[in-house]
Amino acid sequence: MANILITSGPTRQYLDPVRYLTNASSGRMGQALAEAALEAGHDVTVVTGPVSIDYPAAATVIAVDTTDEMLNAVLELFPACDGLIGAAAPCDYMPHRISTEKLAKDGQPLELELIETADIVATAAATKKKHQWVVGFALETEDRRFRAIVKMQRKCCDMMVSNGPAAINSLTNDVEILASDGTTLAHVTGSKQVVAAAILKATQLLIRTKS
Amino acid sequence: MANILITSGPTRQYLDPVRYLTNASSGRMGQALAEAALEAGHDVTVVTGPVSIDYPAAATVIAVDTTDEMLNAVLELFPACDGLIGAAAPCDYMPHRISTEKLAKDGQPLELELIETADIVATAAATKKKHQWVVGFALETEDRRFRAIVKMQRKCCDMMVSNGPAAINSLTNDVEILASDGTTLAHVTGSKQVVAAAILKATQLLIRTKS
Repeated sequence: MANILITSGPTRQYLDPVRYLTNASSGRMGQALAEAALEAGHDVTVVTGPVSIDYPAAATVIAVDTTDEMLNAVLELFPACDGLIGAAAPCDYMPHRISTEKLAKDGQPLELELIETADIVATAAATKKKHQWVVGFALETEDRRFRAIVKMQRKCCDMMVSNGPAAINSLTNDVEILASDGTTLAHVTGSKQVVAAAILKATQLLIRTKS
Repeated sequence: MANILITSGPTRQYLDPVRYLTNASSGRMGQALAEAALEAGHDVTVVTGPVSIDYPAAATVIAVDTTDEMLNAVLELFPACDGLIGAAAPCDYMPHRISTEKLAKDGQPLELELIETADIVATAAATKKKHQWVVGFALETEDRRFRAIVKMQRKCCDMMVSNGPAAINSLTNDVEILASDGTTLAHVTGSKQVVAAAILKATQLLIRTKS
């Protein structure tokens, strides 16, 4: 039995009190992973951005809004866990300046400087990883496999799930599960439940090796 | 009995296939207005952005994603309606350039030029308004009342509902209902159902005058 930390859903990065940047992540992949992990007898903590789905009652759920909030929750929880599955789609750009008042329109273009938010999986792996295993997700529209392998190395992940934008807010997914040496462990197409079962099956090897 | 068109919920404006600008509008104000209007015996059509609430089964519901899609639906439906209640919070800025591929992070700031989207209520009122009445919403953090009156005139509305950012994704609201001459018809605080009933009561006067 392992203590598994799962990030799930989108995060938001505000321009002002009303407008924000985000993506359509539904949290369904994280939900399916939590269900599969609980079913396999593991303890599950989910750190989730704003979603309209429900997580299993047996999981501990921490709700956050922004990428920084998700990062802080993960950094706090990760050391006491055996592994992390980064299924969230955190908003990865934030406005350099956030307005405390709603920006009033004046008919002119609004020049916005966006800077990258902290990479949650990479930061947790680089700063807090000891015995833990880390499974990352890569969502790309081009060169999916190549970019997923580059991301796996950069983020110090032990396994990577590569998928495309069709995964977002969908009931199904089409993923390639990549081992740390870049080989393909599985190519799975189906409901997010089916995909979650395959990811958890591949993760069991990491659990056995690292626990 | 009137044929009432209600816009509801947020819209999204994409930077690339994954990331978009939006706001946390839940559609609950539009939902409460649809319920109140149906209860008063009116016919209701709702044009809604992506929300996780349900609209009353007796309403005709048109689902859209972006501000342009909402505008096109409203311009098509408005001429056959007796009035429009613009309860949606359309995303009012859009990137000048939309990337067809997911923007890859390179560690550098991303300079984004945002331009204003079309104003749905103002465009419908300016180009298609004949016998119809139009009720607008203004959401402001500063100078709420003054800005709402300016918006009412600019958008050719017959009535304006002024509220603040606390309204967003909340079960309650605190609004001022303003007549076209700038006088306050009502100041209502309570559940969105209570606020919807007050807005519909004020709207009845427009329905009687204009129908």
